[in-house]
Amino acid sequence: MPDRFCVVGLAAGSNIDLLAKQVEEFHPEFIYYSQDYNQDEKAQACRGDFGSRFLPVDEIAVHSRVDTVIMAISGGAGFSPTSAAVRAGKTIALANKESLVMAGEIITGEVRQHGARILPVDSEHSAIWQCLSGEGRGVSRLILTASGGPFLNYSPARLKGVSLSQALRHPSWQMGAKVTIDSATLMNKGLEVIEAHWLFGIPLENIQVLVHPQSIVHSMVEFVDGSVKAQLSYPDMRLPIQYALFYPERVSNPELPRLDWNNIKRLDFEPPDIDRFPCLRLAIEAGERGGTCPAVLCAADEAAVGLFVEEKIGFVDIARLVEHVLDQHQVIAHPGIEEIMAADDWARELVFKMVNGDS
Amino acid sequence: MPDRFCVVGLAAGSNIDLLAKQVEEFHPEFIYYSQDYNQDEKAQACRGDFGSRFLPVDEIAVHSRVDTVIMAISGGAGFSPTSAAVRAGKTIALANKESLVMAGEIITGEVRQHGARILPVDSEHSAIWQCLSGEGRGVSRLILTASGGPFLNYSPARLKGVSLSQALRHPSWQMGAKVTIDSATLMNKGLEVIEAHWLFGIPLENIQVLVHPQSIVHSMVEFVDGSVKAQLSYPDMRLPIQYALFYPERVSNPELPRLDWNNIKRLDFEPPDIDRFPCLRLAIEAGERGGTCPAVLCAADEAAVGLFVEEKIGFVDIARLVEHVLDQHQVIAHPGIEEIMAADDWARELVFKMVNGDS
Repeated sequence: MPDRFCVVGLAAGSNIDLLAKQVEEFHPEFIYYSQDYNQDEKAQACRGDFGSRFLPVDEIAVHSRVDTVIMAISGGAGFSPTSAAVRAGKTIALANKESLVMAGEIITGEVRQHGARILPVDSEHSAIWQCLSGEGRGVSRLILTASGGPFLNYSPARLKGVSLSQALRHPSWQMGAKVTIDSATLMNKGLEVIEAHWLFGIPLENIQVLVHPQSIVHSMVEFVDGSVKAQLSYPDMRLPIQYALFYPERVSNPELPRLDWNNIKRLDFEPPDIDRFPCLRLAIEAGERGGTCPAVLCAADEAAVGLFVEEKIGFVDIARLVEHVLDQHQVIAHPGIEEIMAADDWARELVFKMVNGDS
Repeated sequence: MPDRFCVVGLAAGSNIDLLAKQVEEFHPEFIYYSQDYNQDEKAQACRGDFGSRFLPVDEIAVHSRVDTVIMAISGGAGFSPTSAAVRAGKTIALANKESLVMAGEIITGEVRQHGARILPVDSEHSAIWQCLSGEGRGVSRLILTASGGPFLNYSPARLKGVSLSQALRHPSWQMGAKVTIDSATLMNKGLEVIEAHWLFGIPLENIQVLVHPQSIVHSMVEFVDGSVKAQLSYPDMRLPIQYALFYPERVSNPELPRLDWNNIKRLDFEPPDIDRFPCLRLAIEAGERGGTCPAVLCAADEAAVGLFVEEKIGFVDIARLVEHVLDQHQVIAHPGIEEIMAADDWARELVFKMVNGDS
């Protein structure tokens, strides 16, 4: 939709080929590449003939030509540019959940202080946001749906034998490795509960998780009169992205699929099993303990998932490691950003020590 | 909720005992009783010690002390007081569907002219209204759900043998006889399609009916970006009534049930079978033909359902009679109110003639 948007900047982690392709298509003024681009031939070449300039990601996020930042950096790396964009009063279409989970109190305080806006892009939070449209304060409960991941009906014994390639095969969404593994452990849903708490100002005890394997109902809102509103669509991230970018306008887009009720025969729901998927419980407990706990949860999970992706630990070890790190953690209430970062570092180190046998 | 509402008037058809009970509880200034109350001891007694005065129903509906009219008179009898209330610029919480079906063009024109408001009370239309909250013009489709009634899975042969008591046993809603029979034939859903067209200004071809036996999803709205919003609750008319009366406020009401997702395991959907339930097809066709056709549809159906309730005709005769009357009808486009009333009379007479063998 080039008549509606101009891409000012683009940021890449390590996928320089995709960055090069996007630079060629969108001719951004600024690009960021998280690796050392000075010595990198591909990175230098990717600037093309358009004079795209390398700039630190935080500087792109706050640039005066930028009004909306689409924050889709995965994991804790998203925190710094999100926070910078908030302090610059930008509108942030937020796909990164870790920044709100780690530092929800700080970020939401900065949003108020600097007149920034955070618009959810995650499909569940977009669904809740859509259901809240036109509604006042009468919300009684948020119901976050979860596909349940590829191991929904696995026994505890079978979960122990889960391989990396199995865990990377999500039944309904195509996503990056980190969030796909987090979906398989239900950690992702736990992070979303904490994110929803900060995005919508709803107490954690009024946020419920419901397994819905078809991933058609993306979440629901219950109101004080008992009425429930739900948002439905086929799983396709283009819809929540578009909704955030055009909000409050709904824009016709023939590329987005329509639900076909001749084929949707049934929608299934079941409560999540927190015994088989302890990460969901760990996340909600970390959210309730508050302070530095959610940051420790995020960091320990990111480190553990990294080790699982490197096939150094098993699937059920992720929850075991995260639980151990949380048990060891001395929580700091209302932490500043340095304390959050220190807790993050400490948690990652402890995970590596445990796995390398130094702990 | 006596702190929020004062009952100015009450109207009854024939249930004088219920009227007496309500007069005792609410002490209305005005009452209406559709029978001859002068010679009726019970009716005279029901005025109680509160000095309730008998008044024609149209006069109650337009009284200066009335701001909101809850129009729950069933069938064509609801047309006159609805129209009177509209012309008096009242807010009308509308449960009667026939007035909009019979004379949607006239009524919606009068609403605009007199600054009246029609708020839906029917659960499906309330659901659509709730889903439209905060949304602009980006609606692409309305999806009206239907329980499918008690005979959802009956074969054509079995439908022929349906008794009155079977037809009065609705699986999910407790309602009056007329609307219960209309639910069993799916005529009710057809009338709702036409009503939704007038209430929300959506073309008939963009209104779809979907059978959903659990009656938990009360209807849905699809937007131009492919997103769908649905409203859910257990079947309980107090919710849509309350929503209309307090709109736009949502009021906490512990008497209204909350959806229990530990017990809702699945929601089922299927397209309606218009071969076995021809009334749905007849209603949509009458809506598309327009003019006097929907009034003829309503009147013929009301007469036929009356005969079925008197056990003078069989269940499948309802559709047969309505279809015959519609086939015989010389449609008048953009009729005035007299033409609509004449078409209504003509249709009722034709039904009686056909059944009594004079036709």
